[in-house]
Amino acid sequence: MYVDLNVDMGEGFGLYKIANDEEYMPFITSANIACGFHAGDPVIMDKTVKLAVQHNVSIGAHPGFNDKQGFGRREILMSNLELYCDLVYQIGALQAFVKKNGGKLHHIKPHGKLYGMAHNNEDIARTICQVVLDIDDSIYLYCMQKGILNDVAKHMGIRTVLEVYANLDYDKEGNLIITKEHAERTSEYVVNRVVRMLKEKKVETLEGNEINIEGSSICIHSDTPNSLTLVKLLRQRLENEKYVLKSP
Amino acid sequence: MYVDLNVDMGEGFGLYKIANDEEYMPFITSANIACGFHAGDPVIMDKTVKLAVQHNVSIGAHPGFNDKQGFGRREILMSNLELYCDLVYQIGALQAFVKKNGGKLHHIKPHGKLYGMAHNNEDIARTICQVVLDIDDSIYLYCMQKGILNDVAKHMGIRTVLEVYANLDYDKEGNLIITKEHAERTSEYVVNRVVRMLKEKKVETLEGNEINIEGSSICIHSDTPNSLTLVKLLRQRLENEKYVLKSP
Amino acid sequence: MYVDLNVDMGEGFGLYKIANDEEYMPFITSANIACGFHAGDPVIMDKTVKLAVQHNVSIGAHPGFNDKQGFGRREILMSNLELYCDLVYQIGALQAFVKKNGGKLHHIKPHGKLYGMAHNNEDIARTICQVVLDIDDSIYLYCMQKGILNDVAKHMGIRTVLEVYANLDYDKEGNLIITKEHAERTSEYVVNRVVRMLKEKKVETLEGNEINIEGSSICIHSDTPNSLTLVKLLRQRLENEKYVLKSP
Amino acid sequence: MYVDLNVDMGEGFGLYKIANDEEYMPFITSANIACGFHAGDPVIMDKTVKLAVQHNVSIGAHPGFNDKQGFGRREILMSNLELYCDLVYQIGALQAFVKKNGGKLHHIKPHGKLYGMAHNNEDIARTICQVVLDIDDSIYLYCMQKGILNDVAKHMGIRTVLEVYANLDYDKEGNLIITKEHAERTSEYVVNRVVRMLKEKKVETLEGNEINIEGSSICIHSDTPNSLTLVKLLRQRLENEKYVLKSP
Repeated sequence: MYVDLNVDMGEGFGLYKIANDEEYMPFITSANIACGFHAGDPVIMDKTVKLAVQHNVSIGAHPGFNDKQGFGRREILMSNLELYCDLVYQIGALQAFVKKNGGKLHHIKPHGKLYGMAHNNEDIARTICQVVLDIDDSIYLYCMQKGILNDVAKHMGIRTVLEVYANLDYDKEGNLIITKEHAERTSEYVVNRVVRMLKEKKVETLEGNEINIEGSSICIHSDTPNSLTLVKLLRQRLENEKYVLKSP
Repeated sequence: MYVDLNVDMGEGFGLYKIANDEEYMPFITSANIACGFHAGDPVIMDKTVKLAVQHNVSIGAHPGFNDKQGFGRREILMSNLELYCDLVYQIGALQAFVKKNGGKLHHIKPHGKLYGMAHNNEDIARTICQVVLDIDDSIYLYCMQKGILNDVAKHMGIRTVLEVYANLDYDKEGNLIITKEHAERTSEYVVNRVVRMLKEKKVETLEGNEINIEGSSICIHSDTPNSLTLVKLLRQRLENEKYVLKSP
Repeated sequence: MYVDLNVDMGEGFGLYKIANDEEYMPFITSANIACGFHAGDPVIMDKTVKLAVQHNVSIGAHPGFNDKQGFGRREILMSNLELYCDLVYQIGALQAFVKKNGGKLHHIKPHGKLYGMAHNNEDIARTICQVVLDIDDSIYLYCMQKGILNDVAKHMGIRTVLEVYANLDYDKEGNLIITKEHAERTSEYVVNRVVRMLKEKKVETLEGNEINIEGSSICIHSDTPNSLTLVKLLRQRLENEKYVLKSP
Repeated sequence: MYVDLNVDMGEGFGLYKIANDEEYMPFITSANIACGFHAGDPVIMDKTVKLAVQHNVSIGAHPGFNDKQGFGRREILMSNLELYCDLVYQIGALQAFVKKNGGKLHHIKPHGKLYGMAHNNEDIARTICQVVLDIDDSIYLYCMQKGILNDVAKHMGIRTVLEVYANLDYDKEGNLIITKEHAERTSEYVVNRVVRMLKEKKVETLEGNEINIEGSSICIHSDTPNSLTLVKLLRQRLENEKYVLKSP
């Protein structure tokens, strides 16, 4: 059984840091690299791509709304054309760093509020999928099982990778709760929760009930407390459970 | 005899316009398209690339300092790595629009103050040339004969296109005067000046003396008064003089 | 009878222009000056404030969403605290130019999408009103009769000025239609429409029906075609109709 | 004997943090608060001003170049008018938060590269001083003894506060070395160095020689390692040495 560990990367800006990307790289299989709109900048993109190439980590573009102030977590309503072009721009910029450093773009994963909206708004879902097709129709789109993005993508002929979130909460309807502040959990709790999502395809929600969930890639948010420890423990546990860690 | 007419394009931003690019396209042979840092934005880049492809105009990336406030005309001192990455980012973003719209990147031409500094500062000249090599070593770099950029580029194995400026002034040492405000000239004066630069390889400077000048591409600044009329008159005159208008 | 003519001003950015503010100043009585977030920059703010002081035009702060790319016309969802602080910041910046140039802040008028949302969303309406109270509770808030902003403001003890729009459309429910592109109208049509709004308190909507409308200030959008001509004609007509042009 | 402890504050941005300002506030006497151009944002400004008011810490405006990417540490050449207006804008924005929260603006201290340039470039020095006069001629300007800024300010009738840097290096000519990366020093070394600057008016330079230095305010950079510990130790030591900690 294969499982993919993906982490959002390169989300610093100038002197500002969010996480120590270089510490995560040895333990993960896919990196979603910020493209300079919600976070990241050209120097950080170059450095993060180099790190991923060195560690043989698959590289995804992680484009977001053009809003560093809000870290891409604020809803911005724009035309389909504006969104389409914002995405092409960001992914193209990342591709230049990937190509130059001897890598290959593996997937696209929208960031933050855009990711959330893409699962609920068909215009946004279709726009993102059209970008994937126009950039490179052989790459993957990372998304959740729940919501319309996966269906729209499949219908448009795009290969998707379903992901589950290790250290973010789901509500009773299976929506992901993306907040600026994160609750601290014991790593043991989170690891058990992930293994259950993989094996039993179930997860407990914020409200306490249980929902079905499915995914072959696990996303760990690196801006939550103890997330580096969590990645290490999760990787070890998955190896103990005989999973092969590998990007699709 | 071939001659190339190049114009900086796509230099609006959001609702803001600088020039009516669509009116220039039928008359020129190369477009230097702003990449979103000193001017331009993703929607404008997409639209301008499409226009260039439609009119069979060669597409150049026109990257500048990340300073829309100053339109890329203010000196910003940064490390070589910062400049290198800023350029890769911008050119990569433009390439995505070019590729998606069925075009091919033909050249790179730095914008504004960066262009000026590249002719006088070896670090900057070498950084720009390294970007050209790392992005695509088969494309051209547009520059002036005077200054170090042409020499650095040739030494690093890059093909250059020398350009002369139709409606900007040179000082007595052959430096280009880039200002925010431009003097109004009769189009006839400018056309004669260009033809003389091409045929006699001479130009009169701001101070009134005469210098040697050489170039096979003519740059017309579209933010100067009457520049559209100028482009049309210039094209007609060059055709009358039996020049073939064609990008390198 | 008094009537106020207000125009959004200082909405250029760097080299970019929207309108020739200096040509409007002699004909209007209030200027809503952009504060650098949706448009404007420090140099333009200083220049526009100086112009207003010279022409004895009342100065309003015209703050908007922090989105020059979208000219403040795209919905951005943020917390009340974020909006509150974004407004204090912009108005404070403008106040410094007003004070330095010997003027006095007369009113606040939110821009674009924020203006629209403020009439429909109570959180936003209350946040804007709280800013007015905290900055200077003696100044006016410009708003429309229709929608909740006027009511919220009155309830919180703020003096409002009701405005009607000369060259923007209303829909059948009295909502203002703010678009990036504007239909061209004859100035005569617009002038008659304004006089009818003042005298009969009626206006024809986009759908062709008639609604009640009330206001003592007329806003003319300067980014619509022929708007300078319109301002001049409107002023003359209002004077002919024996209105006294004066800000509240 | 009075001595002032000043720290640059509010230099985060959105989700990004540089230092834990709230931990420093109880130990310092003056806060230089970033104004949103090189760092800071409206929410952070409001929060930081509130903290300063609570702790009875004097509030200074800390304006910088409009360059969050470079944290205001990159040279940007602009016209005197552009610089003047950029400063008025930033200081005005901060003033609104100060006034609203019941405080009073105590001083202005330029940030980073602008601070450095102000000590060497007369145009910049004069522009900054003109801003101080036009904003409020009763407030202080923080600067160094070495360089022209202090002289220009005195000549223009501005009250200056001379400051020395606890944890930044000086070169043999007395210039401050502002780098993105800082060497780690023992706090004991730094405390002794500060006390010597105050008592003997001498400091050892990066090159190892000794220069004269003078100041009544000590600046501690909060983005250097262990700087919070340093502030606490320094405060204790200064109290032991019978200094009264107080802003001018």
